[in-house]
Amino acid sequence: MLSRHLARRIASRSTPRVVRLSHSLPDFQLNSVNEQDVEHFSKILPKTSILSTLAPISTESSELEPYNTDWMNKYHGKSNTVMRPRTTQEVSEIVKWCHERRIGVVPQGGNTGLVGGGVPVRDEVVLNLGSMNKIRSFDPVSGILVADAGCILESLSEYLAPQNHIMPLDLGAKGSCHIGGNVATNAGGLRLLRYGSLHGSVLGLEVVLPDGTILDQLSVLRKDNTGYDLKQLFIGSEGTLGIITGVSILTAPAPNSSNNVILALPSFDNVKPLFKEAKRQLSEIMSAFEFIDRTAYDLAVKHGQGRALNEGDVEGAECFVLVETSGGNREHDEAKLNGLLESLLEADQPLINTGVLSQSPAQFSQLWAIREGITEAVSKEGKAYKYDISIPLGSFKEVVDTTREHLRSKGVLHDGAVKHVIGYGHVGDGNLHLNIVAEAYTQEIEDALEPFVYELVAKYKGSVSAEHGIGLMKTHALHYSKNATSIDLMRRIKSLFDPHGIMNPGKVLP
Amino acid sequence: MLSRHLARRIASRSTPRVVRLSHSLPDFQLNSVNEQDVEHFSKILPKTSILSTLAPISTESSELEPYNTDWMNKYHGKSNTVMRPRTTQEVSEIVKWCHERRIGVVPQGGNTGLVGGGVPVRDEVVLNLGSMNKIRSFDPVSGILVADAGCILESLSEYLAPQNHIMPLDLGAKGSCHIGGNVATNAGGLRLLRYGSLHGSVLGLEVVLPDGTILDQLSVLRKDNTGYDLKQLFIGSEGTLGIITGVSILTAPAPNSSNNVILALPSFDNVKPLFKEAKRQLSEIMSAFEFIDRTAYDLAVKHGQGRALNEGDVEGAECFVLVETSGGNREHDEAKLNGLLESLLEADQPLINTGVLSQSPAQFSQLWAIREGITEAVSKEGKAYKYDISIPLGSFKEVVDTTREHLRSKGVLHDGAVKHVIGYGHVGDGNLHLNIVAEAYTQEIEDALEPFVYELVAKYKGSVSAEHGIGLMKTHALHYSKNATSIDLMRRIKSLFDPHGIMNPGKVLP
Repeated sequence: MLSRHLARRIASRSTPRVVRLSHSLPDFQLNSVNEQDVEHFSKILPKTSILSTLAPISTESSELEPYNTDWMNKYHGKSNTVMRPRTTQEVSEIVKWCHERRIGVVPQGGNTGLVGGGVPVRDEVVLNLGSMNKIRSFDPVSGILVADAGCILESLSEYLAPQNHIMPLDLGAKGSCHIGGNVATNAGGLRLLRYGSLHGSVLGLEVVLPDGTILDQLSVLRKDNTGYDLKQLFIGSEGTLGIITGVSILTAPAPNSSNNVILALPSFDNVKPLFKEAKRQLSEIMSAFEFIDRTAYDLAVKHGQGRALNEGDVEGAECFVLVETSGGNREHDEAKLNGLLESLLEADQPLINTGVLSQSPAQFSQLWAIREGITEAVSKEGKAYKYDISIPLGSFKEVVDTTREHLRSKGVLHDGAVKHVIGYGHVGDGNLHLNIVAEAYTQEIEDALEPFVYELVAKYKGSVSAEHGIGLMKTHALHYSKNATSIDLMRRIKSLFDPHGIMNPGKVLP
Repeated sequence: MLSRHLARRIASRSTPRVVRLSHSLPDFQLNSVNEQDVEHFSKILPKTSILSTLAPISTESSELEPYNTDWMNKYHGKSNTVMRPRTTQEVSEIVKWCHERRIGVVPQGGNTGLVGGGVPVRDEVVLNLGSMNKIRSFDPVSGILVADAGCILESLSEYLAPQNHIMPLDLGAKGSCHIGGNVATNAGGLRLLRYGSLHGSVLGLEVVLPDGTILDQLSVLRKDNTGYDLKQLFIGSEGTLGIITGVSILTAPAPNSSNNVILALPSFDNVKPLFKEAKRQLSEIMSAFEFIDRTAYDLAVKHGQGRALNEGDVEGAECFVLVETSGGNREHDEAKLNGLLESLLEADQPLINTGVLSQSPAQFSQLWAIREGITEAVSKEGKAYKYDISIPLGSFKEVVDTTREHLRSKGVLHDGAVKHVIGYGHVGDGNLHLNIVAEAYTQEIEDALEPFVYELVAKYKGSVSAEHGIGLMKTHALHYSKNATSIDLMRRIKSLFDPHGIMNPGKVLP
C-alpha cells in the first residue's frame, strides 16, 4: 500500500536504462538489520509504517523495490527494511537505535535525485520521510513558511498560491520531490537567478543528528547572528550529516506578470554583451536568461519541441537565448521588455538577428517548451551522456567545442558513435548542461569522455556538479572541484557528526 | 605611521563611554609573545609591517593602543605585537608559528564592531588585515567581485559605481569596515531586505585555518554542489575558526532610481497590513520598510533630525513607517509608489493618517535622516542601553511596552532614571532596535534590564543579536537564543578547527 505510488512510477518505465558504474561500490563495515531490530522498530512505529522482509513484519520484497531503486533505475540497493516515520520523535528513536547497533541509515525524500544519493548502497535501513508532510506554520506578512521535511514541493506551492506567495525554488521534479530533499541536496532549479540559493532563503532547520539527538534550529527569524550558522552545513550535505525533519524557509511574493522572449544571435560572442544589456534594462524583473546552442535548438525543433522561429530569420544564428521576466506590474514589465527588444533591433551593430516575444500565456509556454524540450529531444535522438557543470559563462562555447574536437580526435565523432555535442543551460547562473548524444552507450565513448570532461571543468576552476550533487555517482570526481584541504576538512566534519559512519554511507565523500 | 588613521579616530572622541562589563574576562591558557617570536615574525614580514613593544622592533606602546581598543572605547586589550600582513602567505606563516607556540591571534578588520570581537582580551597578537586591500578581479557580466579581505566596503562601492554595480550590503561603518570583517561577522545592514544575507551572496572564501593551512575556496561560481559548503561556517564565526583573507561575492546591478515615502499610522496594528500591502504593490522594487515608534519619532524631531511632518497631520499617530524603493526605471517606480500612496489614502478605512513622498534627492535624504538620526537624537537625550534583537514583527510594540512596564514596576521609569523606552528598526527583517534612554548608566537600571530583556527575547524565540554578533560582549547571553545542543555542536566544531584555542580566544562561545 505504502509503496503504490513509487511502484507505479517505476513500472511505467518501458525499458531499464543502461547502468554505467565504472567505479566499485564503496566499502564500509556496518551491521545488517535483524529480527530483533525490526521487533524494536515496531515498538517505535506502528507496523503499518514499516516495510520489512523480516519477521514480525514479513513484507514481500517486491514492495521494497521502489525504495531500493532510484527513479532512473540506475542504482539498486538491497535494504530489507523501510520505515516511514510520522514525527521527528520517531525519527530520533529509530536513528538512536541504528547508531547504537551501527546500522546504516539512508534518508529518502521523493527519490528524484540524479546521482544515486537517496537509495541504499547495500542493506542500509531506508527512512522515507513521505509521511511527515504537514505544514507547521505560514506567516503571510513575513512570508516565512515552516513545514515538515516530507512536504512535496508542488503541494507547498499550491498551499502558497491563494496567499499570493511562491516557493523560492522550482524544479522539474516538483510533483514528487520533498522540501527536505531539496534542502539536503541544495537544489538549484529555475528560480535561482531571481531568488538566490537555499543558503540564503532557508532560515532554519530541524535535524536528527546521527546519534538520534534532535537539533532544533527551526528559527523563523530573518536575522540571527548568535554563533556559528550550523544549519548551513546540512544544506547540500545529502543526508550524510543528519536527517532534516523540518524546514523554515522564506517564500517570495507571487509576481503579477510573467513574460518571455526568444532571441537568435549571430555569434556566441554576443551572449555576454546581451546578458549585460538585458540586466541593465530589465534589472530587477529579469528572472531567467537561458542559453541554447544551435545544435540543441535544431534538435528541439526536429523533435517538435515548442514553437520554432521562422526558418529564414534564424539562418546563420549560432545560438539562442530565452529571457524571462517576472514582476509586479504587467504594463511596466511589458514596456521594459519591448524597450529591450526595440533597442536591440535598432542598434547599429545588432547583437541579435531576430527575436520573438510571447503575446499570450500559450505562447509563453511554447517558447519555454523549446528550452525545456531539449531533454526530450535528446532522448528521442539517442543515448545521452549528461554533464551538469558550472563554468565561467564566457567559456560555454569553448567547452562544447573542445569536447567535440576531443571526441573527433579520439575517432568517436561519427554516425554510429557520437552524433551531437550540445550545450544549453542557465547563463545567469554559469550552469552549462553539456550533453553528448550518441547512438548507444559504449565503453569507448565513456573512456573518451572521462576523466576528460572533469579535467576540462577543473581547468576552468569550475564545478563538476552545479546542482545535482555528488551522491554515489560522483564521489570519485569530487577532487576535480574541491582541493585536498577542503576534502580533508569535509571528512573531519563527517567524523565529528557521525563517528560510526551510519548516515547515508558511501555518499558524497570518496 | 601605520596607526595614524585609527589613532585619529580614537582621539576625536571627546569622552570615553562608561564601561559596562558585568561578567568577568574569559579564562584561557595561551603563551605571551616574546622577543624570539618577534625575531621570527620579522623574518616573515618587513619590519615596517610589525608594531611591537618588544625588541628588535621596540614600538612605543601608545602606537599599539588603537589596535587594542574598540571604537566605542569600551574594550581594552594588552597586545604587545600587531602585524599587518600584505599577503595570504604571510598570514599563513604567522598563524602557523602562533599555532606551534600556542599564542592567541585576533584577526582585525576595520575595528568597527559593536561587541568587542575585534580586539584582544589579554595579550594576543593582533593581525590587522588593512594592508591586504587589493581587488583581485571583477567580472562586469556576472557581477562577481573577488577582493582581499582588507578592502574597505566603501572603496569597493566606489570601484563598482562606474561599472554600474553595487555591493549587496551597506552599513553605517562603510568608510572603515573591511569586507573580510563584514563576512566574518555576517553583517546585515540596510540592503538585506532586497539583496538577502551574506550566506547567499558570498560565493567563495580564502581562509587561513588556525594551523596555518590555507583553505582556498575562492570560487567564482554561482552554483557548486560538490560536498559540504564549508565557507558558510566562517560567515558569522567572528574570526574564531580562521582568518578570512579573500572574498568572492556576487554584486548587484545598480538601481537607476530610488524613492521613499514616510507614513504616519494611527495604530501599530496597521503596520502588518501595511507591510503586506506595500509588498503587494511595490513588489520587487521595495528595498526598505523601516519602523519608527512615536517616542523615537518625537525624539528625532526634538533634536532636529531630518524633515518633520506637518504637526497637525501626525496628531494621534502611534508610529511611522519609512518605505524605500529602488528599481530600474524611474517612471515605473514613481507610478508604483504613487499608486500605493493613493490607494492608502483613498481606502474606506485608511491604514495611514498621512504620507509624505520625497520629490527630490534632497528630500529623499531628509526623510531618511529622520530614521537614521534616531541614534544621534538618543545620544543627545541621554545615555542609551541598546538592544539589537530579532523578534516576530507583530510583537515589536509588545516588547517595547512590556519593557517599559517592567521598568515602571521596578521603580526606575522617572526623570532622573529611565526617560524613554523606544523602538525602531527593520520591519522587513524582523529586526528591532530597542533603546532605553536614561539620565545616566546605573547598576539599578542595568539589573532591571538584564536578564529581563534577554528572557523576553527568548520567550518570542527571538535572537539576542540580530546583526551585531556575539563577540566578547554577549557570550554570556548566547544561551538565550541557542539551545544546549546547538552550543555543544558549536564547541565541537571550534575544537575541530582550532584544537589549541588560539583563534580569537574568548569570543563567541561562553
